[in-house]
Amino acid sequence: MTRSTGAFLDGSPIVRAPSHPGSLDGLDFAVKDLIDVAGTITGAGNPDWRAGQQPCDRSAEAVDRLLASGARLAGKTVTDELAFSLEGANAHYGTPLNPRAPDRLPGGSSSGSASAVASHAVDFALGTDTGGSVRIPASFCGLYGMRPSHGRIPLDNVFPFAASYDTIGWLARDAGTLLRVGEVLLQERAELRPARYLIATDAFALADQDVAEALMRKLPEDFRVAETITLYGGTGGDWLEAYRVLQGAEIWQRHADWIRRTHPRFGEAIAARFDDAATITAADVARWQPFREWVRGHLPDLLGADGLLIMPTSPTPALSRSASPEEIGDFYRRALTLTCVAGHAGLPQVTIPLGTVGKAPIGLSVIGAPGTDMAVLAQVARIFCLPGVGDD
Amino acid sequence: MTRSTGAFLDGSPIVRAPSHPGSLDGLDFAVKDLIDVAGTITGAGNPDWRAGQQPCDRSAEAVDRLLASGARLAGKTVTDELAFSLEGANAHYGTPLNPRAPDRLPGGSSSGSASAVASHAVDFALGTDTGGSVRIPASFCGLYGMRPSHGRIPLDNVFPFAASYDTIGWLARDAGTLLRVGEVLLQERAELRPARYLIATDAFALADQDVAEALMRKLPEDFRVAETITLYGGTGGDWLEAYRVLQGAEIWQRHADWIRRTHPRFGEAIAARFDDAATITAADVARWQPFREWVRGHLPDLLGADGLLIMPTSPTPALSRSASPEEIGDFYRRALTLTCVAGHAGLPQVTIPLGTVGKAPIGLSVIGAPGTDMAVLAQVARIFCLPGVGDD
Repeated sequence: MTRSTGAFLDGSPIVRAPSHPGSLDGLDFAVKDLIDVAGTITGAGNPDWRAGQQPCDRSAEAVDRLLASGARLAGKTVTDELAFSLEGANAHYGTPLNPRAPDRLPGGSSSGSASAVASHAVDFALGTDTGGSVRIPASFCGLYGMRPSHGRIPLDNVFPFAASYDTIGWLARDAGTLLRVGEVLLQERAELRPARYLIATDAFALADQDVAEALMRKLPEDFRVAETITLYGGTGGDWLEAYRVLQGAEIWQRHADWIRRTHPRFGEAIAARFDDAATITAADVARWQPFREWVRGHLPDLLGADGLLIMPTSPTPALSRSASPEEIGDFYRRALTLTCVAGHAGLPQVTIPLGTVGKAPIGLSVIGAPGTDMAVLAQVARIFCLPGVGDD
Repeated sequence: MTRSTGAFLDGSPIVRAPSHPGSLDGLDFAVKDLIDVAGTITGAGNPDWRAGQQPCDRSAEAVDRLLASGARLAGKTVTDELAFSLEGANAHYGTPLNPRAPDRLPGGSSSGSASAVASHAVDFALGTDTGGSVRIPASFCGLYGMRPSHGRIPLDNVFPFAASYDTIGWLARDAGTLLRVGEVLLQERAELRPARYLIATDAFALADQDVAEALMRKLPEDFRVAETITLYGGTGGDWLEAYRVLQGAEIWQRHADWIRRTHPRFGEAIAARFDDAATITAADVARWQPFREWVRGHLPDLLGADGLLIMPTSPTPALSRSASPEEIGDFYRRALTLTCVAGHAGLPQVTIPLGTVGKAPIGLSVIGAPGTDMAVLAQVARIFCLPGVGDD
């Protein structure tokens, strides 16, 4: 295993042998440093947070399930500070390599997990996804990534960020491994069901034109018989603002005490995000909570049992390592408008690497109804792994 | 698409748009420079051969089938001279990068095709495989590779080397793409059938011990319920010698006139191979032809309709770029003993990237009965793409 990518935490490697053989025999995985591994400290990407922690007594349930199914833990990976960004840069621990586009950022906050999988150091990795932290690095690094339905995988012994949006997700280089890991983490067998594809045209309009065109050019046959729909009923600005307010309020509620007490050293961009979160008022929350409730009813209605929403994962390929603050700000607005769709409604979302723009990977997303995680994973594996088999 | 890997031929890129949309829509592919593309010269990796050729009137059937199914030809790739080596070095056109192990050889003779796929420059590539020229570079570069049943894909407009062993094969990064391309090239739909796995213990004994152990550690569950068999009934020395003689005789019969007439400039290692081929006598052929006939009867008997032979693809990971002649000689003896199994009997063989040794990829092979190409591809895709789906 190479560690020259900056994907793994420095210091002695954290390796755990499988506890039982199983369906993941022979696969190596890495774990984002927001997820507990018994006997190690969860550092959350910030040295002052790390300094206040003890080694964990227990591993997160997801880690135990993987080890009990034959997978081997090969290391813990760098995260953006406290999961609070999508770029994949960390002022304290460095920026992991994006092996598919070495002059670009890997995406975050599951930056090291994406880098480790894309560099073939491991077969798959665990990340966390609140506002896109698995989906964006998967898209940037040319990987498959899964954000499961909210609440579907226990979050005990996982760093809490914005509880009503937090999930554990995973990344892999192929749809088969993504599915196989899903069977273990979700404790459910894959099942193929008929699906109805819905292309969200206004979500495609949020992407760079060359990204939208490249994705449409690469759309597999199945998706081309899709219906087109509009998702936001506008520019999506209200979806984004609801996310900023509700996520920010939860983050601040959870972490304000520690920040006020510890005065942790944050990277400049992260400090600004916490400052913004601190300004959110109870009135702001009261204003946007009903909107989110509407989304949580509207999207399942739109999808029904068999609907799969098709949209870009990220509006852009991976950002340049020298992107300007304006470019980054523009990226965030559009990216979060896309990622908050599954976030608000707790829907499962799979991102699929589908082509490149400017030699950098781009990703297409498939979003399913709440709880249809395995059906989404199986559908993606059918289309991208086993086209034709099982059809008439 | 990056060309900095040395995978593609220099000069103006050879790009062909798809002739029809189809199941390969959106996929880019590359073609080894032993396979004709209408309007271009097939150079076969040797400048003197190239100098004697005219631009081709027609493309090979395989190229036409891919273009007619939505795939886009993105370029032609470097090959070892006249397909006559397994290292992936070319004295005239350079050694393509092995992106998975940059200090090692890519394997050959489909070196540029493997390099182009492994670097993500294209989604899949065509190669040719007489004695391992798809399987070895696939194994070295961490790719899936397919050698089809002999005669299964037309070889008109493909450089002829040793006709009774020659095949067109293909390489991809995932088992799903390998299968999907197979459906187009073989003009047959995938179908899952029950399979019986046979682990060839004496073939595993030919591999480096750490390679054999790493492959056994990574064997998927299905293969573990396999029967073990011995394949060679000895060291395999007779299988290797039969291959050296029969392949060499066919090569010399085909190319002696041109070599005597043209005195082409060959790289040193290639010249020595032709010199060796020139020494093979009719008596040698008469001595070994019956052995091959025995193999051609014995292996189908052993496999039956549902048997799949499991063995290492290559005895070693990719060779170092600075490997000694002794290391290379030892590699050839063991590698050809493995690859000649499918070669002698014309069997379909899929190589699967399965783990690493010394950070370099290694490959496991699955060999089926003659004509069971799609069943082998579907079985591999089922195991490595869609575990669980379709099982009870």
